[in-house]
Amino acid sequence: MITALAGGVGAARMLRGLVRVVPPAEVTAVVNTGDDTVLHGLHICPDLDSVTYTLASMNDEERGWGQAGETWAVMEALERLGGETWFRLGDRDLATHLYRTQRLADGARLSEVTGEITAALGVGARLLPMSDDPVRTRVTLVDGPEIDFQEYFVRRQHAVAVEAVRFDGAARCTPGPGVLDALAGADVVVICPSNPVVSIGPVLAVPGVADCLRQRRDRVVAVSPIVAGAALRGPADRLMAELGEEPSVVGVARMYAAMAGTLVVDESDAARAEEVEMLGVRCIVAPTIMRTVDDSARLAATVLGAVSGLTTTDASPR
Amino acid sequence: MITALAGGVGAARMLRGLVRVVPPAEVTAVVNTGDDTVLHGLHICPDLDSVTYTLASMNDEERGWGQAGETWAVMEALERLGGETWFRLGDRDLATHLYRTQRLADGARLSEVTGEITAALGVGARLLPMSDDPVRTRVTLVDGPEIDFQEYFVRRQHAVAVEAVRFDGAARCTPGPGVLDALAGADVVVICPSNPVVSIGPVLAVPGVADCLRQRRDRVVAVSPIVAGAALRGPADRLMAELGEEPSVVGVARMYAAMAGTLVVDESDAARAEEVEMLGVRCIVAPTIMRTVDDSARLAATVLGAVSGLTTTDASPR
Repeated sequence: MITALAGGVGAARMLRGLVRVVPPAEVTAVVNTGDDTVLHGLHICPDLDSVTYTLASMNDEERGWGQAGETWAVMEALERLGGETWFRLGDRDLATHLYRTQRLADGARLSEVTGEITAALGVGARLLPMSDDPVRTRVTLVDGPEIDFQEYFVRRQHAVAVEAVRFDGAARCTPGPGVLDALAGADVVVICPSNPVVSIGPVLAVPGVADCLRQRRDRVVAVSPIVAGAALRGPADRLMAELGEEPSVVGVARMYAAMAGTLVVDESDAARAEEVEMLGVRCIVAPTIMRTVDDSARLAATVLGAVSGLTTTDASPR
Repeated sequence: MITALAGGVGAARMLRGLVRVVPPAEVTAVVNTGDDTVLHGLHICPDLDSVTYTLASMNDEERGWGQAGETWAVMEALERLGGETWFRLGDRDLATHLYRTQRLADGARLSEVTGEITAALGVGARLLPMSDDPVRTRVTLVDGPEIDFQEYFVRRQHAVAVEAVRFDGAARCTPGPGVLDALAGADVVVICPSNPVVSIGPVLAVPGVADCLRQRRDRVVAVSPIVAGAALRGPADRLMAELGEEPSVVGVARMYAAMAGTLVVDESDAARAEEVEMLGVRCIVAPTIMRTVDDSARLAATVLGAVSGLTTTDASPR
């Protein structure tokens, strides 16, 4: 059994590789919900949806988010009305939010609804929201107010300096059903190459999660989302720097050292492997950039191979 | 100044005629909100939207509801998810609901939001929700439970017998801003050819509305939605019969007698004009079926002409 801590796109690419090298039913993803937001009355879970669409092979590879073949009739009409359209919601994507919002209004829990959506779309892996309780990532801008994560990430296109980040509600939330068991029972826990501050950070802030990882540190493998000093996408590098951490594989190793026995870094960071190991973190150097599903599968095999005694079924390109 | 009590499609057709024969800025519609519902977390106002789309010339004439050129990408995707799709929401129509829901969540009142939507779509007439407070039409089925109006009207396609109708919240609601003034100050009050039970009924149940009409009865002109014993669309005829009223122009006259000095009935009901007049209601016989905008304008001129001292600007076909 493999359990992954997951944010959005980077995690989705890692997961599509994992379900190629082990049976999908053996893969569980504990997904960040700190990015969740309510817009137009609709409950939106960007990371759960990115992972879902990718594992259902419905994701738009080029745009990097949302569904392939998406249409935008609702947004166009909303624009005509003078509505808020900075958070682009495609027509098909909206159906997911309508479904989720209705089910939550019916009294279903987010974990149940997620199970229903993934089943309907034929996702073989198990996706668990980190919590069924609301946790909201809040970002304090330098010389500015504290704003919601999506306001920072989408509306301001993460082009503003950040002073602090907190996960409102995390300390008092209950881990989602199955989350702690999935971590405690996993042969390998993978920390996906997601933003360590605002994607993995909220998951680690859920009571019990970080403790569980610390106790099973030798089975925890992280993949660095920072390659050659930069995030492949998103603001991980700037956020790390702004919050006082070096935006590098060494910085990532420092953030995860207590919880992950192993860090996989990209070949372009080979020169810094020794510094990672000096932090007590085993460093594996491998290609980590996942352009294709085969890239993802190769990286997944590397990650799982990092924990001894595990065999994978198919790491070769198809 | 003309003020109309309005339901959905029948009222929309009456109103598109009224704005042809008097300047649109002189027309106010007090619109039923008892049909409103929340679905998928979205606040839906079917009658306000029918009137808005029609007055913005965006309505679908053939289907009779929703917008012309509508697309259905969201519903199709929702179907794939196994979501509830019995209430068909087109993509463009959804934008209206997203806009409204967001603005209500922002703290705006329904009347403000309605003003914003009609302004954005270029509607010249003034549309007033009958109340900013929630009023919900509830329908008790024969041998069955009490259900929401849309559940009866759309999901069960009003194909079930009704025992009782009530307007939950009406007795304690406050009339929408401007509603009573618009009725008190109107040269003519038009009761549109909408369902007298479930479209006009809720408006009359708003405190003060019926009283105001009774006081101004000589200036109130109703148009019968029942033609030759049948409703042109919808269940008005069956509802009237089920609730103990004859489904005819005489039944309509009886329902409105205390509030409307004049009833306009279709030519096919000419033989019953005398019975209407015996109820103390002046009966005007005219073509009332509105297929085209010209039909609507001609009927509007007839309605306004029923109150002496009023002149209209253009009742001739363009």
